Amino acid sequence: MKRNLLLTPGPTQVPPQLCAALGRPIIHHRTPLFQQYLKEATEGLQYVLQTKNDVYLMASSGTGAMEASVCSLLSPGDRAITVEGGKFGERWTELCQAYGINAEVVKVEWGKAVTADTIKGLLDKDKSIKAVFVTQSETSTGVTTDIAALGKVVAATNAVLVVDAVSGLGVEDLQTDNWAVDVVASASHKGLMLPPGVGFVSVSKKAQALMEKSTCPKYYFDLRKYKKAAGKTDTPFTPAIGIVIALVESLKMVKEAGLENLLQHYKRLAVATREAAKALGLALYADPACISNNLTAIRIPDGVDGGKVVKIMRDTHGISIAGGQGDLKGKIIRIAHMGCLDEYDILAGISCLEKTLKELGHKFTLGAGVAAAQKSLNP
Amino acid sequence: MKRNLLLTPGPTQVPPQLCAALGRPIIHHRTPLFQQYLKEATEGLQYVLQTKNDVYLMASSGTGAMEASVCSLLSPGDRAITVEGGKFGERWTELCQAYGINAEVVKVEWGKAVTADTIKGLLDKDKSIKAVFVTQSETSTGVTTDIAALGKVVAATNAVLVVDAVSGLGVEDLQTDNWAVDVVASASHKGLMLPPGVGFVSVSKKAQALMEKSTCPKYYFDLRKYKKAAGKTDTPFTPAIGIVIALVESLKMVKEAGLENLLQHYKRLAVATREAAKALGLALYADPACISNNLTAIRIPDGVDGGKVVKIMRDTHGISIAGGQGDLKGKIIRIAHMGCLDEYDILAGISCLEKTLKELGHKFTLGAGVAAAQKSLNP
Repeated sequence: MKRNLLLTPGPTQVPPQLCAALGRPIIHHRTPLFQQYLKEATEGLQYVLQTKNDVYLMASSGTGAMEASVCSLLSPGDRAITVEGGKFGERWTELCQAYGINAEVVKVEWGKAVTADTIKGLLDKDKSIKAVFVTQSETSTGVTTDIAALGKVVAATNAVLVVDAVSGLGVEDLQTDNWAVDVVASASHKGLMLPPGVGFVSVSKKAQALMEKSTCPKYYFDLRKYKKAAGKTDTPFTPAIGIVIALVESLKMVKEAGLENLLQHYKRLAVATREAAKALGLALYADPACISNNLTAIRIPDGVDGGKVVKIMRDTHGISIAGGQGDLKGKIIRIAHMGCLDEYDILAGISCLEKTLKELGHKFTLGAGVAAAQKSLNP
Repeated sequence: MKRNLLLTPGPTQVPPQLCAALGRPIIHHRTPLFQQYLKEATEGLQYVLQTKNDVYLMASSGTGAMEASVCSLLSPGDRAITVEGGKFGERWTELCQAYGINAEVVKVEWGKAVTADTIKGLLDKDKSIKAVFVTQSETSTGVTTDIAALGKVVAATNAVLVVDAVSGLGVEDLQTDNWAVDVVASASHKGLMLPPGVGFVSVSKKAQALMEKSTCPKYYFDLRKYKKAAGKTDTPFTPAIGIVIALVESLKMVKEAGLENLLQHYKRLAVATREAAKALGLALYADPACISNNLTAIRIPDGVDGGKVVKIMRDTHGISIAGGQGDLKGKIIRIAHMGCLDEYDILAGISCLEKTLKELGHKFTLGAGVAAAQKSLNP
């Protein structure tokens, strides 16, 4: 009867109805039936992305979608800005470096977000910059960047704004069109409640113009191929058929719940998690001004090993959260509240955290965390 | 009660027990439990590949695994040979071109296979050739290339032999180690009876040495990253967790059946399909000397549209076969016998083909096809 609860920043819980969809008999992808699924999946993603831009699906993880965004828009020697405020920001830089793109790296203190002014300053100084790569929700630190503000700044230039929304999509608001986000890269296994295997990108007309000029070597991640295929409701390579079909069901669930309601739901879970942490005498890692609604990073007190907290919660109690990455290893824990989770899942996570911290010798009033969460959830 | 039978060259039928495995609750991939799955999947693939070489799994289609083989082994300007005897052979050339690799293209008449002598001649003439890219089972034509013979020729040189076994693996014999095949690229959705979404490559020590010197721009498909991660029973990027878990079950089924028995099984289905075609007065497309056991390409008589045959069989009767590609569009049909299929599935396919050909006005003795298949299956 041990629970298998994922409070991890991807993969997230797959609800039973989507498990069932994943187990459906497979169909061939070059058929009118699959075309219908592809059409519905694309339209559903446009709803979640709040965009009329083209959306291209590929069989890959989120990193594949990010790579497609880099190698399909730019050319070796091009100038770009990458924002590094955590592990996933660093990935943008690594991707640019892999393709010989000349990236100006904006180092942001972990736990804080880049400001629009910083980006504006750099764009004003160097008019040759073609793209700004940024992470919406940096799950290594629990920070969400103000994409609306960046969108305003970048839209006034010739550069395109490329956002990694792998973790944030469907959890944090992302108004692709209203905020003038040119490219969004995301994937199936976070807010969309499915296993990993489908990556996707939305691409504005401004970004599509760059695609035509890009000379980076590429094949599988060449977005021009996806654009051409999408025109015939097709994919250039065999898609992850099973996950695409389940994605149609997932997106129906999202639409039925209503995107705005879902965003409120995750915010409510996030606030409750923060209140619980404080009640347990634990500090939040991220700056409150840019704290994320999809993941809460919590400092672990000196003398307690954050890695042990994660291990005991998972191996003894069946509840998975994440530890710290890089320099934060052992020093923070990360509780995600994205995907198919309700308030009782969060209470279970807090309850299990209390149990584990007690075992590891942290001093606090047992029950203070769940009580604070309960109060926050029922004001 | 309409059947949904896939006699297509990928995706293939997913048996119910694997559908069920695909619908299991998702687990996190950075856990000892997933590591165990990854270890078992890797070992199972080594069994099917008949190799002790490293096997790296990635979230992609088969083309992704092919691209990883190109961009991870070679550098721009390198010399290579690509063998083009069909659509998938052309993909090797396109991949080389995408990365600025100087490919000598060996054009093989469609329906025939390249000879080892041809490759030997080219390798003798140009000692700078670093890799030979070939397709084991070319599903656009129904031809299987003699990889053992090519292996002997290439092993005597400094070049590596890279085989696209996306369609052949588990269906046609591929003795990776005995035949000195350096790299095999394949995927989950053909012989391994799963949906598309997992690509993989096996890489010899000789090929691993090339990996270290390769300068092609790459990130997601950089096999060095996969090698490093595999050393820790990990993957560099989020794997297609659900399909990897189901792959463990698929590989158990393969091992339980026994690889040699399976290869015999598919050969038996292939021979029966060929006999049925002949009995219906239809010619086989591939040269008998190199005809494939995983797919039978059948010429459609003048006056009958092959595209219509495929459409009627699928849309009216629920049985999917494939049509011709490129210049062969409308002129051939392709019946795959790979993945989870038994002799009665083949009989159903032949029966449906007879029904459809009759409707389209082809003259033959109704029942001749199924009778010939039945005789072939029960000698």
